[in-house]
Amino acid sequence: MNTHTESLTKQVFTFVSKLYEHGVDDVVISPGSRSTPLAIACERHPHIKTWIHPDERSAAFFAMGIIKASQKPVAIICTSGTAASNYTPAVSESFISKLPLIVVTSDRPHELRNVGAPQAINQVNMFQNFIKFQIDMPLADETEGTINAINMNMIKAEKHFNGPQRGPVHFNFPFREPLMPDVKLRRFLSSKRKTETKYQKSIDFTNIQTYIEKPRGVIIVGDTQGQDLSQILTYSAIHNIPILADPLSNLRSLNHNNIISTYDALFKGGLSIEPQFIIRVGQPVVSKHLNNWLKEVKCPQILVQNNDTPDAYPKVPTISVEMSANDFFRQAQDVTPTQNKNWLDKWKTMDQEARKYIEAYIEEETDEGAVVGSLLKKMTSKDTLFVGNSMPIRDVDTFNLNSKAEIAANRGANGIDGVVSTALGMAIYKKVTLLIGDVSFFHDMNGLIMSKLHDLDITIICLNNNGGGIFNYLSPKEEAPEHFEKLFGTPLDLDFQHVAHLYELGYEKYNDVAEYKRQTLPQFGSYLYEIMTNREENTETHQALFGKMKGIQYVNTLR
Amino acid sequence: MNTHTESLTKQVFTFVSKLYEHGVDDVVISPGSRSTPLAIACERHPHIKTWIHPDERSAAFFAMGIIKASQKPVAIICTSGTAASNYTPAVSESFISKLPLIVVTSDRPHELRNVGAPQAINQVNMFQNFIKFQIDMPLADETEGTINAINMNMIKAEKHFNGPQRGPVHFNFPFREPLMPDVKLRRFLSSKRKTETKYQKSIDFTNIQTYIEKPRGVIIVGDTQGQDLSQILTYSAIHNIPILADPLSNLRSLNHNNIISTYDALFKGGLSIEPQFIIRVGQPVVSKHLNNWLKEVKCPQILVQNNDTPDAYPKVPTISVEMSANDFFRQAQDVTPTQNKNWLDKWKTMDQEARKYIEAYIEEETDEGAVVGSLLKKMTSKDTLFVGNSMPIRDVDTFNLNSKAEIAANRGANGIDGVVSTALGMAIYKKVTLLIGDVSFFHDMNGLIMSKLHDLDITIICLNNNGGGIFNYLSPKEEAPEHFEKLFGTPLDLDFQHVAHLYELGYEKYNDVAEYKRQTLPQFGSYLYEIMTNREENTETHQALFGKMKGIQYVNTLR
Repeated sequence: MNTHTESLTKQVFTFVSKLYEHGVDDVVISPGSRSTPLAIACERHPHIKTWIHPDERSAAFFAMGIIKASQKPVAIICTSGTAASNYTPAVSESFISKLPLIVVTSDRPHELRNVGAPQAINQVNMFQNFIKFQIDMPLADETEGTINAINMNMIKAEKHFNGPQRGPVHFNFPFREPLMPDVKLRRFLSSKRKTETKYQKSIDFTNIQTYIEKPRGVIIVGDTQGQDLSQILTYSAIHNIPILADPLSNLRSLNHNNIISTYDALFKGGLSIEPQFIIRVGQPVVSKHLNNWLKEVKCPQILVQNNDTPDAYPKVPTISVEMSANDFFRQAQDVTPTQNKNWLDKWKTMDQEARKYIEAYIEEETDEGAVVGSLLKKMTSKDTLFVGNSMPIRDVDTFNLNSKAEIAANRGANGIDGVVSTALGMAIYKKVTLLIGDVSFFHDMNGLIMSKLHDLDITIICLNNNGGGIFNYLSPKEEAPEHFEKLFGTPLDLDFQHVAHLYELGYEKYNDVAEYKRQTLPQFGSYLYEIMTNREENTETHQALFGKMKGIQYVNTLR
Repeated sequence: MNTHTESLTKQVFTFVSKLYEHGVDDVVISPGSRSTPLAIACERHPHIKTWIHPDERSAAFFAMGIIKASQKPVAIICTSGTAASNYTPAVSESFISKLPLIVVTSDRPHELRNVGAPQAINQVNMFQNFIKFQIDMPLADETEGTINAINMNMIKAEKHFNGPQRGPVHFNFPFREPLMPDVKLRRFLSSKRKTETKYQKSIDFTNIQTYIEKPRGVIIVGDTQGQDLSQILTYSAIHNIPILADPLSNLRSLNHNNIISTYDALFKGGLSIEPQFIIRVGQPVVSKHLNNWLKEVKCPQILVQNNDTPDAYPKVPTISVEMSANDFFRQAQDVTPTQNKNWLDKWKTMDQEARKYIEAYIEEETDEGAVVGSLLKKMTSKDTLFVGNSMPIRDVDTFNLNSKAEIAANRGANGIDGVVSTALGMAIYKKVTLLIGDVSFFHDMNGLIMSKLHDLDITIICLNNNGGGIFNYLSPKEEAPEHFEKLFGTPLDLDFQHVAHLYELGYEKYNDVAEYKRQTLPQFGSYLYEIMTNREENTETHQALFGKMKGIQYVNTLR
């Protein structure tokens, strides 16, 4: 047995076994030569599933989708050089989204770094702005050091695989040639699993009590990344407190009486209201108007995030509590007196009125909002709707009243990149429909290769308004009309049926929304539905809706 | 006049004017809201040309292409968030390729950083592993500081736009809303240009003289990024020294008597030869066999790179000289005695014999090498052949004997990413044919949008062997055959005619190379020629050729 090969094999087999031990089931590999030891190790592991993705940028977003669907850490593996750089978009997104993306880059050995050797960039700490933990591993040799480096660093890294410190980590592995491990050394491949340690924390509630014993409170719930939220509902029911539920909280689907889904429209209509306390749970919400309101209200705000780096946006909270939502509300119940039922009823009446306008809009209009609203109505609790950034997520915020579907999106940095791939990653474990605009769809078309290579079903609803629809709402439209279409409108003029043919997706095109609404679609499967919409019309109909909201009773009178 | 708007306008108009002053003609902008001030400023500048690219990853590679064609610095501008992360692949490539890519990222203002605000990632120094200069600019205000920060930092940054310190730089600009500059303030837009300072350096040649006065020398020339190389030819002619010319040196096209083009094949055939000194010029060469030889030969090596961070790969040189090739060889002429003509003649004879085998191969075979060889023969001095990494560049190394075409490639980190975009960027100023494999073509298909949006002509020859052809030459093929096709072969099974239709390119498909060779093609224009090849056949024919080289006379006898 060659010593180099045995050391190398032991190193990568041990590392991959450790990944499995700490909960990794899925690994996304992008082909390359330098990554041969890691790729072979994953492939030989008895339980790990490997997914081969030829584009590293999409591959990393694809892994994020698997994380979102499985709530487990997922590893990505690539070769040396710019391959690793292509991971940066998804690493920066998963850092903010707090997703356990385990980035494993293969590197040239030290003597080939920084000397002009091919496929060698400076990979050491290359994601430092966007990473929870990073380590440059040693070259494999016969010493204990090779394995100790894995064991000692995994203790630190795995803190970020689950719980309050979740986020991306980076292992950089230099490998010397020959790169082929000895597949017969399977004794180094272990398939034991670590028992999960549950994260729990209790705090002294005396400080908090003084803030939440007032009669007019509001709970705002954003994305909580799969947390059980049942105690929020109990608390709200007992104490008559309205819950403003972000679409990514996935609370709207419960159709619970106290859940307010229309706040974005109400605020756009001019609602201005001063509660006596606010409890914010989870990530910042989608609605810009709700965030603006949170910035301005004067009452105390309590932020509950199950994370050790809570996001204060949009305003520094009066108290920041690091614990799970259920733990918080279970303890809060005992210290909150029953609230003013009148306060809750006013919110509910207002919500009902707004719903009527929105329901009518979905029925009558023929714009993107109507597509989104009618789509959400058709979906069941078996469905996951993955929503693109820019306009689609805003429309879901407005037009999702109580859809049964699970709603998901990349709302860390809110990029339009990687959306197709994240949706496809989720599609491994969920029945996913993707709602996306044309520019974002274009940006990650390469992600569709996974649908073809791995027979992953996904239904894609592409709202094609031929350019960047969101820019219609921004100032250059009025102030620099001569530059608008070139710099912001950016029509792509692409006929996406060719994309459907390339990736062997079923394809239907609707020339307008009226035509789409006459169908009972979408049928689930590998389909691309392209719905042609109009940026100008969208802007006008949306603005008319928000105008109607101004007529709602009780608005501005709840103080 | 609103003070904020005036300060903002002055800031971005001044910055963009400074870019122009220091040689920037072209700016590639990816659409976004936060980047509005910079985009408008570029658009209003009287001389700057703007190129709008919807995918930041491809946009940055596209800019690299413009740099390669124009030999001028090019700026790229994007919005905040993951948009900036998408620049990383091209930034890391341009750092190693020493290309003046001016990365200008728009950022959220400081109060929205690191707090969970949307589209905010940690952009400060985010490219630190791959950048020559980086600065986080201040928010615009009425003080002198806003403009001083531009003026003082541009002095440092522009050192990297030209000359020995060339490479990418990063300006990060936080902007507060409102983002629209006042287009009437054109007095802040200047269109003066700085006179270029030419880089010159002379050194004491006494040290060098002792190494180069021996009778058997070799000159090896890699990519010198557009340098005038005429003095090398003069020197070689006077002193009877063979020039081993990398395809990216663009010396082979001269058909100069002393230029050896077949060294890669000769080394593969077993050539082993010991000169008395070697002068290496420019970037490391493509040929792995030449690099291996350079590692092993015992004679002194002199490295001439017009750069302040010379690449020692593949071996630490005896002396490293930081100056232009012409300056070096002009001085070297005076200190080198005339060399042994017999030595040069032996190289030439050997080269002639190898050429015969290669010529016959191009004529007779029906594999990728034959496509590459016959393509290169048809091209004229008006053509630029942009070559993909992995197999295409290796085939160009072997089969380009004396093509008149200019040869270009991304040979910093040798990634398969961004190749389509860099070729299209060059196509602004050159008549470009792209030679690329199917996996690399897939990786950057999004780059083709520029052909459509900006009517850029490019002829694409896609060698489709349905997967990663280069892996056939590596060890897992033999040692892990059960994993080979999944992990390394990675067939994509894509029919690229749909890509041609999507981007409105002419399309021709050849089911085999024999069919292709019967045509007089390629016709220049917006065409995609897809040539189906076979990984197994390619490997066999190539290996047979290198086998034949073993029979060449004089091999191993030149010592």
